Amino acid sequence: MGEFEIIQRFFKPKTAPAPASQALSATNAVALGIGDDCALLRLAPGMELAVSSDMLVEGRHFFADVDPAALGHKALAVNLSDLAAMGAEPLAFTLALALPPQLACDAAWLSAFAAGLHALAAAHGCPLVGGDTTAGPLNICITVLGQVPAAQALRRDGARAGDDVWVSGALGGARLALDALRGQPTLPPAALAAARQRLDWPTPRLALGRALRGIATSCIDISDGLAGDLGHVLQASGVGAVLDVEAVADLLAASLPRDSRLHYVLSGGDDYELAFTAAPAARAAAAAAAQASATPVTRIGQISAAAGLKLRDAQGRAVDNAYLSFDHFR
Amino acid sequence: MGEFEIIQRFFKPKTAPAPASQALSATNAVALGIGDDCALLRLAPGMELAVSSDMLVEGRHFFADVDPAALGHKALAVNLSDLAAMGAEPLAFTLALALPPQLACDAAWLSAFAAGLHALAAAHGCPLVGGDTTAGPLNICITVLGQVPAAQALRRDGARAGDDVWVSGALGGARLALDALRGQPTLPPAALAAARQRLDWPTPRLALGRALRGIATSCIDISDGLAGDLGHVLQASGVGAVLDVEAVADLLAASLPRDSRLHYVLSGGDDYELAFTAAPAARAAAAAAAQASATPVTRIGQISAAAGLKLRDAQGRAVDNAYLSFDHFR
Repeated sequence: MGEFEIIQRFFKPKTAPAPASQALSATNAVALGIGDDCALLRLAPGMELAVSSDMLVEGRHFFADVDPAALGHKALAVNLSDLAAMGAEPLAFTLALALPPQLACDAAWLSAFAAGLHALAAAHGCPLVGGDTTAGPLNICITVLGQVPAAQALRRDGARAGDDVWVSGALGGARLALDALRGQPTLPPAALAAARQRLDWPTPRLALGRALRGIATSCIDISDGLAGDLGHVLQASGVGAVLDVEAVADLLAASLPRDSRLHYVLSGGDDYELAFTAAPAARAAAAAAAQASATPVTRIGQISAAAGLKLRDAQGRAVDNAYLSFDHFR
Repeated sequence: MGEFEIIQRFFKPKTAPAPASQALSATNAVALGIGDDCALLRLAPGMELAVSSDMLVEGRHFFADVDPAALGHKALAVNLSDLAAMGAEPLAFTLALALPPQLACDAAWLSAFAAGLHALAAAHGCPLVGGDTTAGPLNICITVLGQVPAAQALRRDGARAGDDVWVSGALGGARLALDALRGQPTLPPAALAAARQRLDWPTPRLALGRALRGIATSCIDISDGLAGDLGHVLQASGVGAVLDVEAVADLLAASLPRDSRLHYVLSGGDDYELAFTAAPAARAAAAAAAQASATPVTRIGQISAAAGLKLRDAQGRAVDNAYLSFDHFR
């Protein structure tokens, strides 16, 4: 198949995307979609543009035999997660795709990949508006564009001493699935299926991110593990944090020792939940935002003036924390 | 080197970029740059966002031993060229970079690549605002963001029968350099150096694109050869074109037979000049736009109501045209 045929046949949206109920309609934002040198978008008045790019590489971010529908979903989900972390609404995305020869002529693979991608795009009113297709080792690079009211974006640098630390959903499951698929630890089939769902079909927390505008003092999405990603917030905000070790371990519901659960929660990546901070006075508002967005949230500790990320037990004693986050070059 | 160290050390802009004289200052457009989940940009009132992504793969778009400074320049130049083709002004760009292990620890290579990238970015007031760094086969994916006054973008679908067809600069040199580097044809050293400059250091025609707003009826950048790229304009506009075979051949100044020059001009890619159409009544305006932007332009034919791309000689006789454009999967 030729480059232009691949785009036309598999990737050019056939119908206008259905906007998500809580999002502005991105359909109105697209002045010009696929098929010119650039796509053209219109932002609503008073909005800032939010932009993020993520690259997924075979053998590094996914296995060669991954379900292509899950891969299409995940490639967009990890980008939408960055918009969620800023409290932004999706507008559109571009896709640059390097395909090895055997995939460039594999209609079933391309069709499933595009279906996974477009289903998530349609659910969030975020159409594909452009990109690039080339031959090469399998590489998927998505750039997502969103909008957020000026000066209302959730950033990493706003956490203040005394703030609560919250996370959405559960953590550690994606990395647990990866280890289990590699043979260790062994999980019961239902537990493996649940963990694998976390690895393959992450849920970007867009509704929660939007609901937290004006409530959260900082926010980040958890892609490399809680320790590393919360660490970015602490560094950007010039603060530290003390986390409740039991609350942290309980973020992974698995029949594993506490140390092992701590390891997965703090160092496991690929979960795409949100970690955010908010003043104690905003606890009810944070809970209401969680309820309005149908997203479970858990309070796991406090921001401290002293730098560093510390764990404490129920008696207030320090717990050793040697859990590092994932770095692609280590 | 770790992922975050690579970004901090080589890619995070150290100083505010210098805006190009004719561009709006992008410095004012960046509300939040590298270091959060998304970058935040502000568009000027009445502007539409223009966005384009291009992916460069080792062995396909460049040789493994390419000068890394030229590679950094070219990776951004091919994206800026898409903005030029829309008449848009650059605002900012994101960079997603997959690096093999030997390059991830090669400070000289990374430093030169970043220097080539940042020099072109600074010349156009287009700062790096975000992206991604990962391990993998060398792959460079840039997404460029620009702005253009609403409804003034130069598109592919506006060419009308009777319009003149114009191109900027020279064509075919980049592909000629590629062939010469592979051994055939043999070029004198000065000619090879000139052609290689075209291949390695393309010039995005941003000033010309902006100057052509309100003058050109359609515009495209030539990345895959004149035949294929002008073909996209003809298809989008529902028209054809008749080109003067001598004017086309003369776009490549090389001591080669006419057939060979035609081949390079029509089918050679990687030149990043602009092809545009304009009404005959706008000839003086097009020439003035070229002069104002210090960019040579040449009139090479006319748009026809009949579909297809045809060549004719000085006597008006049809010349056989079997020159195809480049397709990454053929």
